[in-house]
Amino acid sequence: MSILTRSDTGPVARLTLNAPEKLNALSDAMLAALQDEFDQLREQPHIRTVILAGSGKAFCAGHDLKEMTQGRQAEDGGKSYFEDLFARCSKVMLSIRALPQPVIAQPHGIATAAGCQLVASCDMAVAALGTRFGVNGVNIGLFCSTPMVALSRNIPRKQAFEMLTTGEFIDTDRAMALGLINRAVPQDELEAATNTLAETVASKLGAVVKIGKEAFYNQIDLPLDQAYDYAGQVMVENMLFRDTEEGISAFIEKRPPNWDQT
Amino acid sequence: MSILTRSDTGPVARLTLNAPEKLNALSDAMLAALQDEFDQLREQPHIRTVILAGSGKAFCAGHDLKEMTQGRQAEDGGKSYFEDLFARCSKVMLSIRALPQPVIAQPHGIATAAGCQLVASCDMAVAALGTRFGVNGVNIGLFCSTPMVALSRNIPRKQAFEMLTTGEFIDTDRAMALGLINRAVPQDELEAATNTLAETVASKLGAVVKIGKEAFYNQIDLPLDQAYDYAGQVMVENMLFRDTEEGISAFIEKRPPNWDQT
Amino acid sequence: MSILTRSDTGPVARLTLNAPEKLNALSDAMLAALQDEFDQLREQPHIRTVILAGSGKAFCAGHDLKEMTQGRQAEDGGKSYFEDLFARCSKVMLSIRALPQPVIAQPHGIATAAGCQLVASCDMAVAALGTRFGVNGVNIGLFCSTPMVALSRNIPRKQAFEMLTTGEFIDTDRAMALGLINRAVPQDELEAATNTLAETVASKLGAVVKIGKEAFYNQIDLPLDQAYDYAGQVMVENMLFRDTEEGISAFIEKRPPNWDQT
Repeated sequence: MSILTRSDTGPVARLTLNAPEKLNALSDAMLAALQDEFDQLREQPHIRTVILAGSGKAFCAGHDLKEMTQGRQAEDGGKSYFEDLFARCSKVMLSIRALPQPVIAQPHGIATAAGCQLVASCDMAVAALGTRFGVNGVNIGLFCSTPMVALSRNIPRKQAFEMLTTGEFIDTDRAMALGLINRAVPQDELEAATNTLAETVASKLGAVVKIGKEAFYNQIDLPLDQAYDYAGQVMVENMLFRDTEEGISAFIEKRPPNWDQT
Repeated sequence: MSILTRSDTGPVARLTLNAPEKLNALSDAMLAALQDEFDQLREQPHIRTVILAGSGKAFCAGHDLKEMTQGRQAEDGGKSYFEDLFARCSKVMLSIRALPQPVIAQPHGIATAAGCQLVASCDMAVAALGTRFGVNGVNIGLFCSTPMVALSRNIPRKQAFEMLTTGEFIDTDRAMALGLINRAVPQDELEAATNTLAETVASKLGAVVKIGKEAFYNQIDLPLDQAYDYAGQVMVENMLFRDTEEGISAFIEKRPPNWDQT
Repeated sequence: MSILTRSDTGPVARLTLNAPEKLNALSDAMLAALQDEFDQLREQPHIRTVILAGSGKAFCAGHDLKEMTQGRQAEDGGKSYFEDLFARCSKVMLSIRALPQPVIAQPHGIATAAGCQLVASCDMAVAALGTRFGVNGVNIGLFCSTPMVALSRNIPRKQAFEMLTTGEFIDTDRAMALGLINRAVPQDELEAATNTLAETVASKLGAVVKIGKEAFYNQIDLPLDQAYDYAGQVMVENMLFRDTEEGISAFIEKRPPNWDQT
C-alpha cells in the first residue's frame, strides 16, 4: 500500500495520507509523495477539486521526529538536512496554494504541528467533530515557526499566539469560531460532507474557479487600489470566456447553461 | 423618480438605490448616480454620516447582466466596455472609502455579488434579520473577483474562499460572526436602527471623524512602527483643533462641550 | 508606593499599574516607569512571562488628560510636547512587542483609549468578566488614532471602525468573539487565571519562546513565500539548540526532558 493513496471520483481527487502507524507524519517519503501528486494535479484540468484526508486515528501529527533525529548524525549536526527538509515542506504547503484546484482538508482525530499547518494551508477544511488542533512543538522545545505562517493567516493573532506559546489544543467549536475550519460534522458523516463540498465546487466551471483561486491569493496582500486594478483585469478576462457568455445568457433566459467545459 | 434618491436629515444623508424592478442592479446609470452623489458628499462637510440603502425587496443583486450582455455587441466583443465598467465600479467602491464621512450600508433581502461588495466596502453595516449575502457569480461562470477584494478584507480567508467558490449564501447570524456586518435587527426596525447608528456618529465632531476615518485606512496595511509614526502625527494634529481643546476641557470640568462645529 | 509595582514569582514578572486615583492613566511618569521596566526585562532572560495588571477599579483609562491640557501652555500650544508624548507612548507599545517574553494583559473594570491599546498591544489578554473595552476619545473630540493601530490588528475592521467612531464600549463576550482577549473569567479568579497562563508559557524553554515570539511578528506581514523562507531558517536554528535536541529525544523515548535551561 502506498504512503499516499489517490482515488478519483469524476472531477474530485481524494488524497489520503496513509501511514497510520506514524499518525501520518510528514516524513521525507510523505512529503515527496505529496509533492509528486500536487505536481501531477497541476497538469490535470479534468480534476476540479482535491480532498486531503488521513487514514487511521489521526489526520496528521506533524513532522517525523525520529527521522529528524536521525538527520542529526550528519557531520554538520543535521543543519543541511533540516534546511532541505523545511524547504521541501514549505514547497508542499505553497504548492497547495499554487494548485489551480481548490484543496479541502478533511481533518479528524488530531491535526498537530505541521498537520495543523496542512489544514491551515488548504483553501477550505471540513473537520470531524472532536478533532483537536494544536501547534504544540513548543512543548518539546521546537516552536512551530513554519506552521505559524499558515495559522496566523487563518485566525486572529492573539489566539494564534496563545496556541503557539501554550501548545494547547483547540476543539472543533473553537476552530469554527476562529476561522480555521469551514465545517464540523460527526465522524461518520465526514467523508460524505467533504465530498458534497468538493462536488459543489467541482460543479462550477473549472477555468473560472482556477482564475478565481489564483486571483484570491494574488490580491489579498495588495493595497486596495492595486487589488482593484488587478481584480478588474481578471473580471474582464473572465467575461470573455465562451462558457461565461453562455452561463450569463442562460441565467438571463432562465435555462440551464450549455457549457463546453470538458 | 430618480434611480438613486437622497434625503438628508440634519447631518445624515440617506442614499437609496431605487431600481427595485432590477433588484437595484449596479447598471451604468446606477454607478454614475452613486459616483455623482459621492463626489458631491465629499464637498459637503455639514453631512457627517451617509447611509446606503435599497428600495424594494433586495438591497442590491450586483451588476446588470442584461446590460453587460448587450456590451458584447461591440467590435471587440465587449472588452473595452468591460474594462471601463469594472474601472467605474471599482472607483465607486474606492470613493466610499475616500469619503470623509463614514458610510453605513443598510442591506435587506439579498446582497449578492457587487451588492455584497457594496456592503463590504462600506465602513459599517446594519442588516435586516433574514438578509442573505453571497458572492455567487461562480454559479453562472463569472467569479466575483472584484467583490472578493472587499469581502476578503472583511472576513477570514477560508470563509471568504468558501463563499466565492461555492456561491452559497450566508445569513445574518453568520455575517455577524464573520465580521461582515455590525448589527442585525428585525426588518421593521431596520431604518430606525441605522439612523440611530448614523446619528451617534454624526453627533461627534465631523473634522475629528474625518481625520480618523482617513487615518484608519491609511495605517491599516502599514508595518507597525510606520503605522505608529503616522498615527502619532494624526494625534498631534487632532490635539491642536480648537474644538478638541474645548472637548477635553469640558470633560475635565464635567460640563458639556461648547463646540464651534457648524 | 511606586506608580508601577513589580513582583516576580519564579519566571513570571507581574507589573501593576498603580495610580488608582487616576484610573492608572498613562501619565508621563507612568509611561517612563513602563519603559524602564520593559528595558530591564529585555535583559532578564530568567523572566519568561510578563503580566500587566492594574490596581484599583480600572485597568487603565488612557492618557492623562489633565497633564495633556497643561502641556498646551507651552509657546507652541503644546505641539512639541504632544509629539514627544505620542512618540514615548508608541515606544512603550512597540517595546511590548519587542520584548523577548510574552506579555499578558490582565484587564478589569475598564480599558479605554490608550488603556484598550495596552490590551491590544500585549501578546495575550485575560480579562475579568464585566470588563468594558472602548476607544472612546471621539466623544471628547480626540480620535483614538494610536490605539487604533493596535486595535485594528486584533479585531475585524468593521467592528474596529464602529468602536472608534461611536465611542461605544464592548463587553467581555464581544471582546472574546472579536479576538481582543483570549480568556474571560470571574473577577475573583482573575489573578489566578492569568498566573496559570503565564506559568504555562513560562514552563516552556525561554530561548524557544523568545525566537518564536520574534518570528511571529517578523513573519506576519510578509508575503507567504518570504514568510516561509524566513520561518524555515528559524526552524533550523531552533533544531540546533541543545535543549531542543534533548526535548525531542525525550519525547521519542517517552521520558521527561532534562533541559539545561537556567
